[in-house]
Amino acid sequence: MVLDLLDKMGKGNRLALSRVLSEVEADSAPGREALEKLFPSTGKAHKIGITGPPGSGKSTLVNALAKALRQLPGNPKVAIIAVDPTSPFSGGAILGDRIRMSDAIGDTGIYIRSMASRGALGGISARTEALSEVFDAAGYAFILIETVGAGQSEVEIARLAHTTIVVDIPGLGDDIQSIKAGILEIADILVVNKADRPGAQQSLNFLRNMIEMGFRTTAPRFGHHKLAGMVASEGTQITQTQGWLPPVLMTIATKADGIPQLIEEILKHAEYLRESGGWRAKEAAILRHNIESLVAIALWEAWKGRVPDEGLEEQVALVMNRQQSPREAARQLLAYNLNIKTSSSE
Amino acid sequence: MVLDLLDKMGKGNRLALSRVLSEVEADSAPGREALEKLFPSTGKAHKIGITGPPGSGKSTLVNALAKALRQLPGNPKVAIIAVDPTSPFSGGAILGDRIRMSDAIGDTGIYIRSMASRGALGGISARTEALSEVFDAAGYAFILIETVGAGQSEVEIARLAHTTIVVDIPGLGDDIQSIKAGILEIADILVVNKADRPGAQQSLNFLRNMIEMGFRTTAPRFGHHKLAGMVASEGTQITQTQGWLPPVLMTIATKADGIPQLIEEILKHAEYLRESGGWRAKEAAILRHNIESLVAIALWEAWKGRVPDEGLEEQVALVMNRQQSPREAARQLLAYNLNIKTSSSE
Repeated sequence: MVLDLLDKMGKGNRLALSRVLSEVEADSAPGREALEKLFPSTGKAHKIGITGPPGSGKSTLVNALAKALRQLPGNPKVAIIAVDPTSPFSGGAILGDRIRMSDAIGDTGIYIRSMASRGALGGISARTEALSEVFDAAGYAFILIETVGAGQSEVEIARLAHTTIVVDIPGLGDDIQSIKAGILEIADILVVNKADRPGAQQSLNFLRNMIEMGFRTTAPRFGHHKLAGMVASEGTQITQTQGWLPPVLMTIATKADGIPQLIEEILKHAEYLRESGGWRAKEAAILRHNIESLVAIALWEAWKGRVPDEGLEEQVALVMNRQQSPREAARQLLAYNLNIKTSSSE
Repeated sequence: MVLDLLDKMGKGNRLALSRVLSEVEADSAPGREALEKLFPSTGKAHKIGITGPPGSGKSTLVNALAKALRQLPGNPKVAIIAVDPTSPFSGGAILGDRIRMSDAIGDTGIYIRSMASRGALGGISARTEALSEVFDAAGYAFILIETVGAGQSEVEIARLAHTTIVVDIPGLGDDIQSIKAGILEIADILVVNKADRPGAQQSLNFLRNMIEMGFRTTAPRFGHHKLAGMVASEGTQITQTQGWLPPVLMTIATKADGIPQLIEEILKHAEYLRESGGWRAKEAAILRHNIESLVAIALWEAWKGRVPDEGLEEQVALVMNRQQSPREAARQLLAYNLNIKTSSSE
């Protein structure tokens, strides 16, 4: 069944693709089998991460970008993976909007897939990468990964993508400034969207100054991860594009203003990566991160599977009563890891 | 040395407190010792999480809140833990702003501590909880934990706090709507800040409708964590306040407008929790989550310490060349966990 699905998917059948994506996202047995089978066909796609604060118009920008990428020579297929916050009420509603957007685009060369963001970051990362593999194997040349960015998720997206685009808008207020500073750590390209709003030029200047300041420092610009190695999902360093000065562009996504320039910079960045050897380094970093996330998830699941509920609750009760610290409880509970097996390696 | 520091800290010495916080955040040997020693004195503080999108004026609101809480009977001490995105350039600048803010407040009963958000989510959670323990033991009755929220970090904050406040502002644009939906999952109190902006009433109505819709559903409102258990930092369910209808308030933090009402709702929520038994359930959930985060970090570190760099790179190379999948590499690498010891349990 899986082989049949993959065969149809390879021939461009969207229903088969959709089915494979669902199985992979559910981490079902057929999904796992599909991933093993299709993995050798991966490694061709250009993965582009797009992040920015709520209200920055990311979705509109991503849609405009997708349409424009389709016009490139050879009319490459474009996938959009939108990591959406999950709603407990509306649930499907967000997904529903996406589906409508997809219809609005009305181009079977563009596939939009929403993914719920609730759950482990490591888990999101692993699932996003798995969906990317499916699109990659299905012949999608560009995979746009969109997340709402603030803090963690931004860093995470930079670990999944060859090119990271950070979207900003004019006049978001004060505390955006600190975020901007953090954002420069991961951005390959910066976009000031909604550039017809007042303050756009100031935002652009601010970002350019920050970039240039950072670029001139002799200290390593990136990889200040004090906690690197603490948990798999954050365990690997982000491989930054050395020697690449991130351009700052203005766009008005609703009118597709500035999109050609953005595409140009994306292609330039890809070219730069390929010529500098950075592409291979990014690929290795993406795969390393993916492998480590999978290990962390497996370690956790194996441990979790070994700890009886009573064992955990007993420790929690001792900590509740201040008879021992959470750290001592963790040490006690780690004993369940002692005779761990490499599960599923049979 | 540690006992001396803790003694001084207990007597209200801010320098000693600051020193203990630094050691704890650095996870140094004295920091660990301090945590063990002070843990029995914890469990008294009311932990309040405050989250919201960039530009929502959270910091101003948190400062106004801190000042107002100080005026409560007995003049309780208030700690602010601000989880800031780290900047590789400005680094200390954000922290610097905070210190200035603290000076501006000019009240030694308020202690503001910034914490870098880069690094693992599980790590942030564990570090924030550790800092909370220090403040708690040092006699801070209220601990305000502030994060920039969008997606993950919101959920995380709800796992650390007794009361979670979600801050929104009028007219942030379209994709904020989907976030709002997600936010209802965790909010105990909703605040529309910058309520003098146009659209405030609409935002308020929207949020109230969402809350009431959600409240009327018979399905469990919360805990839709499909990936629960996947990784420790997200492994435990959020213990929501059952039977509590989250109020929606308007504030103008810059003018301290609406702050008394907010304080009233915070105290009401604490009272509700204590009367309903929810307080103990929250405490248990916070501690359970903390213990599980510590386990996940330890599992990961133990594994990471056992894997030689060559072993990992060999697997990455095989995946790069598409000779095996990331999942197969993870299975191979899990073998290093086989003879794991419960490190530091001596």
